[in-house]
Formats: sequence, C-alpha cells, structure tokens
Amino acid sequence: MGRWASGSRERLESAALDLFVDPGYDETTVAQIADRAGLTRSTFFRHFADKREVVFGTEDTLSDLLVAAVSELPTGLSVAEYLTAAFTRAGELAFADERHRQASQRRVIVARHPELRERELLKRAGISAAMTSAFVRQGVDELGARLGGEFGVLALDAAFERWTDGKPTASFGEIAADVVGQLTERAGTLG
Amino acid sequence: MGRWASGSRERLESAALDLFVDPGYDETTVAQIADRAGLTRSTFFRHFADKREVVFGTEDTLSDLLVAAVSELPTGLSVAEYLTAAFTRAGELAFADERHRQASQRRVIVARHPELRERELLKRAGISAAMTSAFVRQGVDELGARLGGEFGVLALDAAFERWTDGKPTASFGEIAADVVGQLTERAGTLG
Repeated sequence: MGRWASGSRERLESAALDLFVDPGYDETTVAQIADRAGLTRSTFFRHFADKREVVFGTEDTLSDLLVAAVSELPTGLSVAEYLTAAFTRAGELAFADERHRQASQRRVIVARHPELRERELLKRAGISAAMTSAFVRQGVDELGARLGGEFGVLALDAAFERWTDGKPTASFGEIAADVVGQLTERAGTLG
Repeated sequence: MGRWASGSRERLESAALDLFVDPGYDETTVAQIADRAGLTRSTFFRHFADKREVVFGTEDTLSDLLVAAVSELPTGLSVAEYLTAAFTRAGELAFADERHRQASQRRVIVARHPELRERELLKRAGISAAMTSAFVRQGVDELGARLGGEFGVLALDAAFERWTDGKPTASFGEIAADVVGQLTERAGTLG
C-alpha cells in the first residue's frame, strides 16, 4: 500500500473517531465519515469492512506485534521482561505519541457502547491466548504461561488507561514498564 | 420454589445436556428437551428463558456465590486465601460431586460452539469484575484487586478443566485449592 493510500486510511480513521465522539457512534454513517475525510464511500470500504473495524483496526495488529516482540527475545527470561519489551515495541508502533488523541477518543467511544466493550473483551481474550502460546515457546511452563497471558492483558489495559487519562505525561512504553513493575509487586503478595 | 418445581428444573437440565451432546446443541429444540424430561414446553419456559440459559444457569449464580464467600471472611487476608475459601463454597454448591456429569457435558458443549465460548468469556469477565470489587471491599488495593480478579478467573477455569478431565479423583474444592497454590507459586516468579 503506497503513501497516498496510507494517508487516506489515517484521514478516514481521524474523521470517523471525531464523529463517533460527536454526534456518536450509532449516529454516524460511512457516507458522513468519507465526506468529512474528503474521500468517497468506496475508498472507505477499501480500508475498512465497516464502521466497527475503524475502532478495532489497531487492536487487530496489536496481538501480532506483541507476539513478534516476545518471540524475538531469548528464551528463559521472566514474563515481566518479555512484557516490558513487547509493550515498548507496541508504544513505538501502535501507541506512538502522535496517536494519543485517537487512542483517547477510542477509549471514550468503547466505554459508551456495551457491544463495543464486548467486542473488546473478546479481542483481549485472543491477545491473552496468543501471548500464552508465545510464552510457552520461550520455555515458560503451561500454567505459568496462562497466568502470563492474563497478567499481560491486565497490564496492557491498565497502561492504556493511564496513558489516555488526560494529557500524556510519558510514552506508552514508559507507562507500561511502570505498570508491569507495580503488577509484579502485587503478584508476589497474592499468596 | 417447591421440591416438585426444583425436580423439574433438574430433569430439564439433565435432558437438555444429554441432547446437546448428542445429537447436538443446534439440533435440539425446546420441545425435544421437554419431551425427554417428560414435561411440557411451558414448564421449560417457567425455568429457562431459552436453550442457552440451560448451559449458563449455574454460571449466573456462581458470581454471587463467590462474592458472598469472599465477603463473609475477615478483611486483610491474602487473595489466595479468599479464593480458596470461595472455591470450597462453590465446590459444595455449584460444583458438588453429583454435578460432575453435567459439568463435564457442559464443558464439551461449550467447547464445540464458538458462540457459547464467547458468551462464557463475557460471563468470566463479569465474574472477574465482581471479585475485584469484593477484594477491594476486603481492603486489597485497586491494582492488586484487579490482578486478583483475573487470577481468580484463571484459577476457576483451570480447576474446572482439571475436575472435568475424566473421572473425578477429588472434589472441586480440593482441586481448586491445589490450583490456587500452583498459580500462586507461578505468580511469585513473574518478575
């Protein structure tokens, strides 16, 4: 996909998120999104299957991105070490500073719509399962890897919430590293 | 609800689960379930809103049961202590030995149907959120309580899987206590 096509996708995403916040997700049509982006409906459908995919487009690549980051590291590290590296990578790509506005809008939109929250929970379960498999491949035992997958998704959620609470005070990767540290501390006192 | 009504519910549940395994969930009608139980369709609908509710009836009470068990304990215990007590109670009520056959059938049915698996994931998210709130009320800090909720749902799943793997070798409560211990060990080595 060329630079022009990539620009269209970003313009469509930005227009859609603005409209999903106001007047609202249910009130916005694909025609209105295309119009606001200065593009056509058919261009919209070259980039997204439907409205909902604008909200979950980044999520779909997130799982692959996190798994790839874990897989590149040597075996035998701790789950916290794998996660910190994976979230740093996610911070550079999916959650770069210039995506803060979109990420904050997205959070508001998902929070307002139960059906989007359900979809997000299912995506999160997919990320947890994918990370569990990645941990097993790095030598973590199965039960520990399942715990690592759940732990990772919780860290991702908590870091995303902190990152999108008001103006950004640090990069996503820095915030996520801090959250992983705090959660690791809590994990040590569960027993 | 009297003894007779309660007997009807159990007969309907047992008939439904048998049919959901063979010929299958999609192939089974409410009329067939009622017929196999020797009852009428209208009796079925006095107990269940639809077919799917037969599969998730126990799950709906599970969350309340676990929260009640945590809430009865003194504040200041560890998450593992709360969970072990809650799962012991669940083992006595929702997962008593005589429910092993139904629980095993239920597991097979859910595993075969993506839409039931999705529904189960959403129920699990509800249980996690309810346990998080229960832990906060017992004095666990918010991040630790969120971790406790996810940890608890993973322990519940892993214990349920182990309990329904073949013939029962121990009670649900005993298996769950063992799983909580193993997961606590793994949690201590995440960092």
